[in-house]
Amino acid sequence: MRGIERIILESNTFKLVSREYQNESSVIKLNNGYKIGDKKIAVIAGPCAVENKKQLFECVEFVKNAGASVIRGGAFKPRTSPYSFQGLEKKGLELLALVREKTGLPVITEVMCPENVDLVASYADILQIGTRNMQNYPLLKKVGKVNKPVLLKRGMSATIEELLLSAEYIVSNGNSRVILCERGIRTFETMTRNTLDLSIIPIVKSLSHLPIVVDPSHATGKRELIEPMAKAAVAAGADGIMVEVHPNPDDALVDGKQSLGHADFYKLMHGLIPVVRAVGREI
Amino acid sequence: MRGIERIILESNTFKLVSREYQNESSVIKLNNGYKIGDKKIAVIAGPCAVENKKQLFECVEFVKNAGASVIRGGAFKPRTSPYSFQGLEKKGLELLALVREKTGLPVITEVMCPENVDLVASYADILQIGTRNMQNYPLLKKVGKVNKPVLLKRGMSATIEELLLSAEYIVSNGNSRVILCERGIRTFETMTRNTLDLSIIPIVKSLSHLPIVVDPSHATGKRELIEPMAKAAVAAGADGIMVEVHPNPDDALVDGKQSLGHADFYKLMHGLIPVVRAVGREI
Amino acid sequence: MRGIERIILESNTFKLVSREYQNESSVIKLNNGYKIGDKKIAVIAGPCAVENKKQLFECVEFVKNAGASVIRGGAFKPRTSPYSFQGLEKKGLELLALVREKTGLPVITEVMCPENVDLVASYADILQIGTRNMQNYPLLKKVGKVNKPVLLKRGMSATIEELLLSAEYIVSNGNSRVILCERGIRTFETMTRNTLDLSIIPIVKSLSHLPIVVDPSHATGKRELIEPMAKAAVAAGADGIMVEVHPNPDDALVDGKQSLGHADFYKLMHGLIPVVRAVGREI
Amino acid sequence: MRGIERIILESNTFKLVSREYQNESSVIKLNNGYKIGDKKIAVIAGPCAVENKKQLFECVEFVKNAGASVIRGGAFKPRTSPYSFQGLEKKGLELLALVREKTGLPVITEVMCPENVDLVASYADILQIGTRNMQNYPLLKKVGKVNKPVLLKRGMSATIEELLLSAEYIVSNGNSRVILCERGIRTFETMTRNTLDLSIIPIVKSLSHLPIVVDPSHATGKRELIEPMAKAAVAAGADGIMVEVHPNPDDALVDGKQSLGHADFYKLMHGLIPVVRAVGREI
Repeated sequence: MRGIERIILESNTFKLVSREYQNESSVIKLNNGYKIGDKKIAVIAGPCAVENKKQLFECVEFVKNAGASVIRGGAFKPRTSPYSFQGLEKKGLELLALVREKTGLPVITEVMCPENVDLVASYADILQIGTRNMQNYPLLKKVGKVNKPVLLKRGMSATIEELLLSAEYIVSNGNSRVILCERGIRTFETMTRNTLDLSIIPIVKSLSHLPIVVDPSHATGKRELIEPMAKAAVAAGADGIMVEVHPNPDDALVDGKQSLGHADFYKLMHGLIPVVRAVGREI
Repeated sequence: MRGIERIILESNTFKLVSREYQNESSVIKLNNGYKIGDKKIAVIAGPCAVENKKQLFECVEFVKNAGASVIRGGAFKPRTSPYSFQGLEKKGLELLALVREKTGLPVITEVMCPENVDLVASYADILQIGTRNMQNYPLLKKVGKVNKPVLLKRGMSATIEELLLSAEYIVSNGNSRVILCERGIRTFETMTRNTLDLSIIPIVKSLSHLPIVVDPSHATGKRELIEPMAKAAVAAGADGIMVEVHPNPDDALVDGKQSLGHADFYKLMHGLIPVVRAVGREI
Repeated sequence: MRGIERIILESNTFKLVSREYQNESSVIKLNNGYKIGDKKIAVIAGPCAVENKKQLFECVEFVKNAGASVIRGGAFKPRTSPYSFQGLEKKGLELLALVREKTGLPVITEVMCPENVDLVASYADILQIGTRNMQNYPLLKKVGKVNKPVLLKRGMSATIEELLLSAEYIVSNGNSRVILCERGIRTFETMTRNTLDLSIIPIVKSLSHLPIVVDPSHATGKRELIEPMAKAAVAAGADGIMVEVHPNPDDALVDGKQSLGHADFYKLMHGLIPVVRAVGREI
Repeated sequence: MRGIERIILESNTFKLVSREYQNESSVIKLNNGYKIGDKKIAVIAGPCAVENKKQLFECVEFVKNAGASVIRGGAFKPRTSPYSFQGLEKKGLELLALVREKTGLPVITEVMCPENVDLVASYADILQIGTRNMQNYPLLKKVGKVNKPVLLKRGMSATIEELLLSAEYIVSNGNSRVILCERGIRTFETMTRNTLDLSIIPIVKSLSHLPIVVDPSHATGKRELIEPMAKAAVAAGADGIMVEVHPNPDDALVDGKQSLGHADFYKLMHGLIPVVRAVGREI
């Protein structure tokens, strides 16, 4: 893939995250030993927002049994309107800690400002930087100094080069455990919430040693599109997928239209298996 | 997939191409009996432009042996600059006819204006409408009156609804044999020529009975991205792929950077097989 | 403006339309002597579509009295849906010819395919190439051979360089009387129909000798935005504006929401005067 | 402008910043008495980044004499690469305070994270929220609790509705002194850094009582385009402009290509006067 490498690396912008700096693909090891970027496809699943103990535990138990490897759940929610539900905050973090204790699975949750990084890091196994914060540099610098892996979502209008430069902020501050995440970019098409840009996967694989996962829930905004897009992501070489699941999507406080119900998540996991094997991976 | 159907069909815009009008997926039968939209994935391959007999025949023989099912080759080329090579025109059509005779494979080539439709239809098995002509309505009406299948490429900034409405122009003029083609849309990302929007596949499958193929060559503009994107397209449910192949890509008169050499095309075909099977299709 | 020139002209793409080829700004002289690109700002006004004699004449009489210099009206209409009103076609052209006879003002109307170019040219003073046909090369070549000025609209996702290359198609075929038209580009913003890109004006003025006018009606899709955007266009250096006017916008067969009623058009003309003078032009 | 209001306000998303909530246009009064949103067009000028005392004072003295009303200068710089100059930070704030003391003009500077808000507010007259932080909600909430006006830049892919919702975050937290700023959105066009969307001005004026200024420097990325775009902004109804000026643009540490030299800034101020008057404003 010399053509692409030449284009980018001439601008000599990112260093530590580049394939030139480290030829071997990074495998991100969580503190409990679970690996992302290895042969096994990571399935990060759970509700968009932690709403209450019942909703969370019901969902988590289901997705664990169906094969999820990491539990997602938002405690601090970046909402477009100040009048929308902003998350359970610290209470949500405590519930996620309970989930980890009960299931043994690692949990991932979003952190939105530098001053909350230590708090969130004391509960979560992976810190998520959301799409609106991909270029929140004080936040990137701060998570660069924590001893927890970071999942960095692509900004909704960020170029691939800008995503890699934001990863460089984290790594150059001392934290090399970065997982990239494609979640769709903003285009003129209105039938999907965003346009999932799967070409980022082979490009990132060519330019960088970092793993990349795909979030088809936010990318499409429509639950019917999650399964085909998850399959496509795996076929294109993604190291994992991240999906929103809710015991009763139509009652979800946040993003219900793009959440899978339990039966649909089970169907997704089942449908992914042959594609995962076709590209020589495991699930 | 009621969510999507509701959104679109409320606007009640397209009719004959809709799933509501015809619930069963259309299988487009070429005049020689070959089918697109059936269980078998179509592989449409060949040079971007027909340059001369040697180049064309060398390429065609190779792609046929490697498993291509339809031969592509441009005789009339829509070029951004008036000073670029505009194609061999009628001479190119004659060479394509020779190819069909020699190989028994159907050929597809682009037609750019209504007055050439009858000429091109007398040589080609499938008429291609290019991305710049997706909303060239006199051309759509004219190919709607011919007895040859039409491959309709999505405009580079066309919404999915607009693509289906352009298909409706063709079908409502009498030609129901329409194959849709996703070839990337224009976005801010500069590392790819366009952004391949694979979510169109399940959306089209939900809203319409027409088959859809994917062109990863024009979508990405980079040959290194063709194989992963072709696999992703198949995993997402595409009915075929369309790729540019050239005996010596670096010497191609048009689009060399996005053309596969023979070895790469062979590798692509080989790599596609397990993915095709994983989604229950054949190749 | 060396920065921009360098970027573009290094690619050495367009020639005859460039400032390097002709340093002096082109003034396009219509066959009746009226000039576009001179000190006087052109005001091209009229209904989106010619619907009938009464509607057309009522509108034309009004806009003439209010100061319009060219009459616009669509006879062949490129409509997204095959089931929408497609225009009065030849009957519409005849009505436009009557308008010219009665008012003495030049008329402009769209031509959509090569085979209609001679017909439309026999009625119209300026041939319009619509946004969907900016890269319809057979059409560009054909209007390049006619003895009538051509107004070339920017494609809805065309770069400025591509617009200039399409103009180059016309000029290199022999017709140097080309007027460019900015009409908005497709972006993610949904509150306007398109996003008016006024920076094209100083860029075109730097790179090319051709005049450029602005169509705020199609750019915004909302009649309330026409006056401020028309003023902005003139302030940025546009050579004219093109607006849709309808005797009763809410009853218009096409694009009523973006058409001005008579009172609003009068207010627009009145509001433009001080801005026109502020930039040293006339109206 | 009922058409637009209806579209938006049906979604009933923003409240305190809406025209429905407050019909009269807000005039933002700075602590020193200077007003933005009144009859007088605000001219916010100065270097992109404060580099050193000499550069800053040379620039400030010039722009003050040429008629600037507010001094801009970055102390904390959000840079795409971690290896680019990140600003003088506290030292830069101290220099800006000296500037205010010496010139009597208010100063504006960017704040990038909640924990620096109090620090920056103790030096600056207006707090700037940059384009990458338009949806940094903890930051918006924090500046909503300070007794200093806030200039909120539109995110590079934010819709107008999202910009107004981000303003709503600030106002609903207690700070009603918000000035909006259009600085270009991300599109496919590569000849400009972003695409300046001037239609936002009349839309904001219709939907909200907040003032809006335009930054043609970041919007275009090219100094040659600043003057025509500044004129267009004023003609469209902007309450001010924000431009980057540098004593020697080609030596600037940040954004030199889009900075005006002193002579060009003087020419801009001179050229603006007649347009300002044409729309009934003062400068």
